[in-house]
Amino acid sequence: MTTEPYLLTPGPLTTSLRTRQAMLHDWGSWDVDFNSITGRIRERLLQIVSGADTHECVPLQGSGTFSVEAAIGTLVPRSGHVLVPQNGAYCQRIARICRVLGRKLTTIDYAEDTQVAVADIERALAADASISHVALVHCETSTGILNPLHEVAEVVARHGRGLIVDAMSSFGALEIDARRTPFDAVVAASGKCLEGPPGMGFAIVRRAVLERCEGTSHSLAMDLYDQWVYMQKTTQWRYTPPTHVVAAFDSAIAQYLEEGGRVARHARYRQNCSTLIAWQSSGSAASCPPRSRRRSS
Amino acid sequence: MTTEPYLLTPGPLTTSLRTRQAMLHDWGSWDVDFNSITGRIRERLLQIVSGADTHECVPLQGSGTFSVEAAIGTLVPRSGHVLVPQNGAYCQRIARICRVLGRKLTTIDYAEDTQVAVADIERALAADASISHVALVHCETSTGILNPLHEVAEVVARHGRGLIVDAMSSFGALEIDARRTPFDAVVAASGKCLEGPPGMGFAIVRRAVLERCEGTSHSLAMDLYDQWVYMQKTTQWRYTPPTHVVAAFDSAIAQYLEEGGRVARHARYRQNCSTLIAWQSSGSAASCPPRSRRRSS
Repeated sequence: MTTEPYLLTPGPLTTSLRTRQAMLHDWGSWDVDFNSITGRIRERLLQIVSGADTHECVPLQGSGTFSVEAAIGTLVPRSGHVLVPQNGAYCQRIARICRVLGRKLTTIDYAEDTQVAVADIERALAADASISHVALVHCETSTGILNPLHEVAEVVARHGRGLIVDAMSSFGALEIDARRTPFDAVVAASGKCLEGPPGMGFAIVRRAVLERCEGTSHSLAMDLYDQWVYMQKTTQWRYTPPTHVVAAFDSAIAQYLEEGGRVARHARYRQNCSTLIAWQSSGSAASCPPRSRRRSS
Repeated sequence: MTTEPYLLTPGPLTTSLRTRQAMLHDWGSWDVDFNSITGRIRERLLQIVSGADTHECVPLQGSGTFSVEAAIGTLVPRSGHVLVPQNGAYCQRIARICRVLGRKLTTIDYAEDTQVAVADIERALAADASISHVALVHCETSTGILNPLHEVAEVVARHGRGLIVDAMSSFGALEIDARRTPFDAVVAASGKCLEGPPGMGFAIVRRAVLERCEGTSHSLAMDLYDQWVYMQKTTQWRYTPPTHVVAAFDSAIAQYLEEGGRVARHARYRQNCSTLIAWQSSGSAASCPPRSRRRSS
């Protein structure tokens, strides 16, 4: 018996014992039963954003940043031009990715405590027809600042440009609805609001866009088009998947749905937030939230 | 109680219960105790190839292919020229990586059941001074063909070119000694002869080479120079590591050393091979190797 502390970072975060226990089994990545797990994960992630009719879910090995880079490399043509409204570390990382990948980049810079303004994006798109994509961070992990995704998406769509969203810290807890909010790609990972272990990310990509992305990627391993085509054909991951992480993520998503999905998850996070603030305001260690007790064996 | 079958694929492979149990704990990727695990893994991987004096171990998120691509992208200048002797699927994958990354490529093609010939490489290097690197697969996972790493390495060094080795299927079981065999990079992953779970790879890179690789990479997430510099400075991974996989890999390496390291691991694989062949030759299910019995809880 050990008492394990909560991880109070935005990720990796504390997972449930049931999620971790899913990693006690070895899976063959060529086996039908493992590939049905992959299929179920893809289907459920699409359902979370109501994207089954219009989008595809493409999982990718690595951390969330790998999936963000993969989405930019796969979706933005080498001659493309990305507008990045910047109000935090993860926006800056997207800008850095564009520079390394040689995609033309324009930024709109804000202070870290200021939301992105839709009017600024509207103005930038109207002024420069060469901007092919906007890359937006939905919720800045570094500050918690929430950007107006729906409003930005409508403006970008009205101008006929593509939208790539880093939803790392929001996916599964804040509403993203593909039927209502137009986007080319929403990117997130296993280890945040869905409470799986870190080790894989995924992109929810508009099918009609993805179909046109053959040969665009700067990378073989991070080519989401190639990963998608291979997965559609074989049901398998293109290169060795993190099998234990995938199985645990599947379990975490099952628990997410049992808990009541997005609305319930968001309500729990609100409650956690209130508890933390109340505890901090009280200044008393005695009112610290109870620590979890778990068997470590 | 369940009886779990052995995974008889080259990877993912069957891991020990102790290795999987290491995934029952959550780790914060900014915590000192987690980063000491990363440090220990890097140190021990270097020791396995006797590379502590000359090389650095740079781990990377993702499958082995991510690390192979990262090594090529980080070490081969954009104006570089890679010679790939090809006798199997993983050689072909390296060639494909070079094409996607826009590195000039020359191949020497062999049948899948034929070893790479050192004389061919010698001839190619002598004939073309623009070849900056040779990329060799040590043991072809797809066929088991073993290429003459030491002899190739000597020829490449004699010609003053760089050598990048995909040692995915050999690292930890077949001898690779950095004091004896000159190489710029040897790349492998958590999930093969070291018997960890899949989800991370690593490159053992000559320090003097790595120091010159700033800004070469085609990718931000796969930039081994940047990963190394950040890790040296902070002891942390640059982006979220697959914490559970890292902890389990650390446990797998501890078990590897307890078993007796490379020599003992190789002897066990030889024994497994003989058992399998004997069983297949006998044609009798009764002589099937005993199945492992494990608790699945």
